[in-house]
Amino acid sequence: MSVLTGVFPVVPTTFREDGELDLDSQRRVIDFLVDAGSHGVCILANWSEQFALTDAEREQLTDVILEHVAGRLPVIVTTSHYSTRVAAARSKRAQDAGAAMVMVMPPYHGATIRVGETAILEHYAGVAAAVDVPILVQDAPMAGTPLPVSLLVRLAREVPAARYFKLENDAPPDKLRELIRVGGDAIEGPWDGEESITLIPDLEAGATGTMPGATCPEALVDVWETWHAGDREAAVTRFERLLPIISHENRMAGILASKVLLKEGGVIASDAGRHPLPSLTWATRARLIELARRLDLMVLTWAG
Amino acid sequence: MSVLTGVFPVVPTTFREDGELDLDSQRRVIDFLVDAGSHGVCILANWSEQFALTDAEREQLTDVILEHVAGRLPVIVTTSHYSTRVAAARSKRAQDAGAAMVMVMPPYHGATIRVGETAILEHYAGVAAAVDVPILVQDAPMAGTPLPVSLLVRLAREVPAARYFKLENDAPPDKLRELIRVGGDAIEGPWDGEESITLIPDLEAGATGTMPGATCPEALVDVWETWHAGDREAAVTRFERLLPIISHENRMAGILASKVLLKEGGVIASDAGRHPLPSLTWATRARLIELARRLDLMVLTWAG
Repeated sequence: MSVLTGVFPVVPTTFREDGELDLDSQRRVIDFLVDAGSHGVCILANWSEQFALTDAEREQLTDVILEHVAGRLPVIVTTSHYSTRVAAARSKRAQDAGAAMVMVMPPYHGATIRVGETAILEHYAGVAAAVDVPILVQDAPMAGTPLPVSLLVRLAREVPAARYFKLENDAPPDKLRELIRVGGDAIEGPWDGEESITLIPDLEAGATGTMPGATCPEALVDVWETWHAGDREAAVTRFERLLPIISHENRMAGILASKVLLKEGGVIASDAGRHPLPSLTWATRARLIELARRLDLMVLTWAG
Repeated sequence: MSVLTGVFPVVPTTFREDGELDLDSQRRVIDFLVDAGSHGVCILANWSEQFALTDAEREQLTDVILEHVAGRLPVIVTTSHYSTRVAAARSKRAQDAGAAMVMVMPPYHGATIRVGETAILEHYAGVAAAVDVPILVQDAPMAGTPLPVSLLVRLAREVPAARYFKLENDAPPDKLRELIRVGGDAIEGPWDGEESITLIPDLEAGATGTMPGATCPEALVDVWETWHAGDREAAVTRFERLLPIISHENRMAGILASKVLLKEGGVIASDAGRHPLPSLTWATRARLIELARRLDLMVLTWAG
């Protein structure tokens, strides 16, 4: 089993204007991300509006996307659920469909339902017992569950499948450095997320993977490869050119950012989120497209 | 269409020790709640561990329970989902299975995903467009979404199906009084919840329904009927006798309280919650059973 590293954009879920899944657009997003040189992709993430989907739609998207990817790159499938047995069953199903890894948040529901450290460990152990692929532990604000480094390291040691960690809370580079220092070999994949907005300090801290949105994958792959070729100064310069659009996605345009650009570039038919996800204001949308044009992003030109 | 009023206990979802649904126990819980004189019941609520179920299990439970109730009392089915179209589809399905009302929280997901007032109104309008039964708007801490009286009244006026309101946030009697005063005839059902712990002041404020757990339904029905027969002093006295167990359920034993007593009384086979829901400590469990014995609750004797 090879170690997963690199730039793994989140695949947005594409809907028609009426809210139905748009599977033709969905396949074109995959082709775009493959052509952009992505090292892998992640589906059914929060940035894919996973919380707006039915169970049946999750399964359909998993099947359709993995069939269409057809081994061109590794696919991470998000399988989080409050219930351990449901998260385990979702993970097994994703693995059977061809997932290279499953991404799992700690158990949570709404504003009030959280569980303690032992239950969190048991939850990941329950998922691990159902699959052979590794687990990417998602340390995300949405779960409202603090996952201190001590707990992450205990998890990596007690549940060996849980050896990838996507850190989105706290100050990611500091937490990555601490996780790597304390966890040692048990930490196979220290990753970041949050649209890759802290990518440079995270690379300095030792990040081996990053999970951005799907707005500028080719440019982030270029930063990644420039960095790993040893030209850190050029990587920093190129990343800082991207920072206005990454920051706009992270702080303003949010979940819909990549779909707005994919629609603008003719890759997908509609940039609709599923109600009640708020649409972008005209100002946020206009600024997003202007920033993408200034960078001549591939998302605007790929469909020709 | 008759107005729904009275004591509507939440039906706990019964699992086997291995986490599978236990439908035989599920049917016995229904028979117990009918024999206890409940005016109606509510299924798939948070107190039913709805957040631990798959979509398929929600549908199976709805079908099995409504078939087993067979019109003996009105059934409220909880159909909340972040996505408006999913909540609407769940509601239509519940109505077709025989639900007398659907209970719907405002859209939310996890610690961070919330929507604004207009989107909340549109969400309920979307559900209302899919069904003919009334909607019980659940104003619950879990949703992490403030629903001020001004919004609830606007909702009742703009979406006539949304005319029942279960208030669990803020100080329920004060909010009920304000809702009734401002909303007038648009508020058909001002209800409370939270294990009926504020039932007496809520009745004084004009509550027409209450949604407790399933620990002491016969005793709460007695309080309800004594109150409505005009003997308020006796109702208060009888309610205050119940307050220790209601308070223990509300503040300590929580979601598992009714299942522990149903198991103790031989009504159901297992009191297991679905992992990772924490089990009760021995002290909390022992105190719960002691409080139930002291009151000679029907849940302990019904199965004979």
